[in-house]
Amino acid sequence: MNVSEAIRAKRSIRQFTDQPVPTAAVRAILDAGRRAQSSKNTQPWAFVVVRDRAALQALADCGPFAKHLAGAAVAVALLSPDPAERWSIPFDVGQAAAYMQLAAWELGIGSCLAAIYEMDKARAILGIPAGKGEATREWPARSRGDSRAPLRPYFYAALSFGYPAPGTAHAPRRGGRRALAEIVRWDKW
Amino acid sequence: MNVSEAIRAKRSIRQFTDQPVPTAAVRAILDAGRRAQSSKNTQPWAFVVVRDRAALQALADCGPFAKHLAGAAVAVALLSPDPAERWSIPFDVGQAAAYMQLAAWELGIGSCLAAIYEMDKARAILGIPAGKGEATREWPARSRGDSRAPLRPYFYAALSFGYPAPGTAHAPRRGGRRALAEIVRWDKW
Repeated sequence: MNVSEAIRAKRSIRQFTDQPVPTAAVRAILDAGRRAQSSKNTQPWAFVVVRDRAALQALADCGPFAKHLAGAAVAVALLSPDPAERWSIPFDVGQAAAYMQLAAWELGIGSCLAAIYEMDKARAILGIPAGKGEATREWPARSRGDSRAPLRPYFYAALSFGYPAPGTAHAPRRGGRRALAEIVRWDKW
Repeated sequence: MNVSEAIRAKRSIRQFTDQPVPTAAVRAILDAGRRAQSSKNTQPWAFVVVRDRAALQALADCGPFAKHLAGAAVAVALLSPDPAERWSIPFDVGQAAAYMQLAAWELGIGSCLAAIYEMDKARAILGIPAGKGEATREWPARSRGDSRAPLRPYFYAALSFGYPAPGTAHAPRRGGRRALAEIVRWDKW
């Protein structure tokens, strides 16, 4: 599947079959996210793979738009330093998420982004140290093998993955996005 | 070019040939960004295509990491509401940027992200109303055809596009990203 076709055809999938996603496919998806570019190559992300059904169901209760996590074959928690620290952090995590979702689509695997509203509850489910603080600033250093104090990553988004339930992977409806003429200006605002 | 190959091989290109990028290719790139998903489908973005050499050179002086804009065949200014308003805004713009850069790569066109540090200066170059304020909150409504007061979009990033200068589009070096084992945890933090 070429890039433009994947971008054209991909849609959010919120209902999945019971078919497990092979570990090799999960690794391929993670690897796509790993390869994303980032500001000064800081790679301000970490991923927790969630396969336990009880954990998925608990995460699904961490926000009004996270319900689809309950039925995912596997989910990936997207962790980063405080996204409010600078715009490039969520921007970069967004790029990594886009790579993962496109790579999954090419493998026939659907996905959907879930916003995590109840961060401390979600952190507790995955055993992530709770609280906010300066420790998150050490993310890149620690990820490079530094043995400083444990990180307390921010956990505000997760991706559901799984094989699309029948009838859910059809082509996107027309009109789902604004037309180019509405969002593009040429040469001047 | 399939998705996984594009993700694996794509690298940031900061030097370009003099070859113009055809308008059809620019439109294909913009269309890839347009198709990106976003929080509640808000599509919190607008794009200004910059082809004028003087404007590109002026934008290149709007930040220490924007120099490559000066030599781009074309640039796309990424505009959004205030990225500090909520994490999903820069996250979504990051997804749209990733789509554009991957779509470009498939067309043989290189790209690089530029951070715009001097926002008001950059806005003036493109004729974007300066200042911050509540108007940016009206972005989605206005983009849907609402005729309320003009927007004053935030302009904090741009993409350079162009055909890669000889020797710049080789495969990414090994070790440019952390290994999966460094950034992934399975089932628990």
